[in-house]
Amino acid sequence: MSDAAETESAVLTANRAFYRAFAAGDFGLMDILWSHRAPVACVHPGWPPVRGREKVMETWRGILSHPPTPPIRSVEPVATVHGAFAYVICFEVIGELYLVATNLFVLEEGAWKLVHHQSGQTERRPGSEPERGDRTIH
Amino acid sequence: MSDAAETESAVLTANRAFYRAFAAGDFGLMDILWSHRAPVACVHPGWPPVRGREKVMETWRGILSHPPTPPIRSVEPVATVHGAFAYVICFEVIGELYLVATNLFVLEEGAWKLVHHQSGQTERRPGSEPERGDRTIH
Repeated sequence: MSDAAETESAVLTANRAFYRAFAAGDFGLMDILWSHRAPVACVHPGWPPVRGREKVMETWRGILSHPPTPPIRSVEPVATVHGAFAYVICFEVIGELYLVATNLFVLEEGAWKLVHHQSGQTERRPGSEPERGDRTIH
Repeated sequence: MSDAAETESAVLTANRAFYRAFAAGDFGLMDILWSHRAPVACVHPGWPPVRGREKVMETWRGILSHPPTPPIRSVEPVATVHGAFAYVICFEVIGELYLVATNLFVLEEGAWKLVHHQSGQTERRPGSEPERGDRTIH
């Protein structure tokens, strides 16, 4: 595997751990996965932005105390790496509910740590392509 | 102004230019603002992810041919800088419609260029704080 492929694989591993923590309601793992050094933020679907580690982790503590059922799954994750930061865009699937998320990571002491997550609902399904003239709001 | 404040200011200037291009339907400016070097992606509200410069700019060409009315405005933008990348989280306001967006930038030859944009609708208004127990989907 090339260095680039190895790096992408490491980012996708961190992304999988995020959804494992999410699905399992594992706050301890979620806490480890988020950066302790860099400023972090989060945009949960329909929420206003949440900024700062303490507030972000407080939202996760609430969410993970009753994780979504059926368990959330990440589908079609694609990692893009730019040096010491990377982002994964993926679908999130909760039963019949579909969302699209961006998860932003930074490299800290050899580990990819989350610094930002934004998720929003979509009517579209994994595998679908944007259509010409496709527009909802903008 | 400190170096950090100057950098944040430069990122916010790039973010303002993005919304100026968006509101004015100025595809030429929008094209300049997106990176020509780094891989780019976009998640328009309700859309599946769009990946690759050609496809992303094609979506902008479509959107900017009929930009939203009343014109889109960016409210409460906050920039976070991590070395050669930065992101801005802000509200987007189109009349009575509120969205939250993350705009991701990389530094290229001294200019902050967009590499990713995700926007999603919110019921919440600028100035509001997440409430304890606040949850929509997750």
